[in-house]
Amino acid sequence: MVFGAVLAGGKGSRMGNYTVPKQFLPAGGKPIIVHVVEKFLVHPEIDYVIVGVNPEWLQHMTDIVEKYLPDADRLTVIAGGADRNSTIANVIEEINRISGNDDDIVVTHDAVRPFVTLKMISDNIRIASEHGVCDTVVPATDTIVYSDNHEFITDVPLRSNTYQGQTPQSFKVRLFEKVYSEMTEAELKIVTDACKMFMMKGYPVYLAEGHVSNFKITYPEDYKMAQIFLGDNVGVNENDQ
Amino acid sequence: MVFGAVLAGGKGSRMGNYTVPKQFLPAGGKPIIVHVVEKFLVHPEIDYVIVGVNPEWLQHMTDIVEKYLPDADRLTVIAGGADRNSTIANVIEEINRISGNDDDIVVTHDAVRPFVTLKMISDNIRIASEHGVCDTVVPATDTIVYSDNHEFITDVPLRSNTYQGQTPQSFKVRLFEKVYSEMTEAELKIVTDACKMFMMKGYPVYLAEGHVSNFKITYPEDYKMAQIFLGDNVGVNENDQ
Repeated sequence: MVFGAVLAGGKGSRMGNYTVPKQFLPAGGKPIIVHVVEKFLVHPEIDYVIVGVNPEWLQHMTDIVEKYLPDADRLTVIAGGADRNSTIANVIEEINRISGNDDDIVVTHDAVRPFVTLKMISDNIRIASEHGVCDTVVPATDTIVYSDNHEFITDVPLRSNTYQGQTPQSFKVRLFEKVYSEMTEAELKIVTDACKMFMMKGYPVYLAEGHVSNFKITYPEDYKMAQIFLGDNVGVNENDQ
Repeated sequence: MVFGAVLAGGKGSRMGNYTVPKQFLPAGGKPIIVHVVEKFLVHPEIDYVIVGVNPEWLQHMTDIVEKYLPDADRLTVIAGGADRNSTIANVIEEINRISGNDDDIVVTHDAVRPFVTLKMISDNIRIASEHGVCDTVVPATDTIVYSDNHEFITDVPLRSNTYQGQTPQSFKVRLFEKVYSEMTEAELKIVTDACKMFMMKGYPVYLAEGHVSNFKITYPEDYKMAQIFLGDNVGVNENDQ
C-alpha cells in the first residue's frame, strides 16, 4: 500500500504571536493542514493518510478532522514523537498495523506546505518505488554560503549543484525501519532529517522535482502569501515590511 | 566616499512572458529598480549612486531616471559588462572618476531586491569599513542539499552553518581592484559572485544580517509578492498555483 504521512509535530516558534502552531492557522477558509491532507486524500495512488501531530495538539487535530473532513474514512490522526524521525517511526508503527506489507511506501510531507501538487506526490511514489528513497528539491535561487563560525564565510558551494530541500520525502517502509534501527542515540540527536539519515547509512537519496510555489510556511510573510494564494483578501501595506 | 551600486545587468530569463527585464517591471506605481535606487539615495551615509545596466537597456534606464528621479543629482547610469564582476569593474572605473580615494567603499545591490532596508545598508558600510568585504545573508530556511550528478543527493551540509546569500555585498574599492586583477580569465568565467572571488584570493568575507523579506524577484510568484507588499491590488487565485 501507499501511505501519505502528514508531519505536524512543529510548534511554529518563528511565527510570532500566534497562539496555535502554524499548520492550524486558517487560509482559504480552513486550517492549512486540511489543505495538505486533502491533497493526499484525493490522490489516486494514495491508499491511506496518517497525520502525526504533537501530542499536545492531538485533540485539536481530531476536532479539525471532525469538522472539515467528517467523511474521510482512510485517515488516522496519531501522536508524533519528540522529533521528526520519531514521528515518522510512530507513523510506520501505524502503517504496520494497517498493512504491514513488505512493499509499503510512505510519502511524508510537511503540514505547512499546502502547495504540494499531485504530480509531486506521483513522482515521489514512482522514484521511491524504484530507488527506495527520494527527496523533493528545487534548484537553489539564492547563492548558498557556509559559515562554521557565524562571523565570516568559510565556504561557498558551486551553485549549479545546490538545491533547496522541500518535501515530500518518500521511502520504502522496510528501508526506513532498517536504517532507523542502525542509528545510535547520538546520531539521532544530530540527524533530524530522514533523507540525511538514509545517506549516512549509505543509501543514495534520489531527487524528485519540486517547485518554488511548494514553499514552507515559516515566517509571517509566508503565511500572508499562502493566504493570498488561497484566495483570502488580506490587507498588506508597506508598514508590514 | 561611500557609493551605492545598483547592479541591473540581468535579462530576467526566468520571468516568463514579460518583454522587459524584471527590474523594470512596475510595482507600487514605479519600476522595481526605482524603489532600489531610492533606498540608496535617501540613505544618509551614501554619497553617490551608480546604476550598472545591460547596454541594451541603457536608454530605457536613462528614460526611467528622467521620469521618476528627475532631481537626483548624485546618480549616474552606466553600461554594465558581460557578467556581474565586469559590471562591478565598470562601476569602479566610474567611482575612480568621481572620487578615487583610497578609502572608497561600494555597497553593491541587486536591482531586483527592492526590500533592502536602510539598516542593512548601514551594517554593510560598517562591516566593509572594518573588515574589507561583507555579504548580506540569512540563515537558510530550507534544508540545503547538493547533487553533483543531478540524480541523487551527494551531500547535505549542516543546516545551522548554512546561509542564503542576499545582497548588498560591500567592499573597499581598492581591495576589489586588487583581487579582480589577480583573477585569471578561466577563474572569472567560473566565479560570477564577487564575494566568492574575495574568498578565492584569501580574504574572509564577513556576514551582515539580511532578512527573509529582502528576497530577490526571480519568478513570477516573487513579482506578485513584491507587488502586493508595495500596495498593488493584484488578482491572485488558485489557478495561479
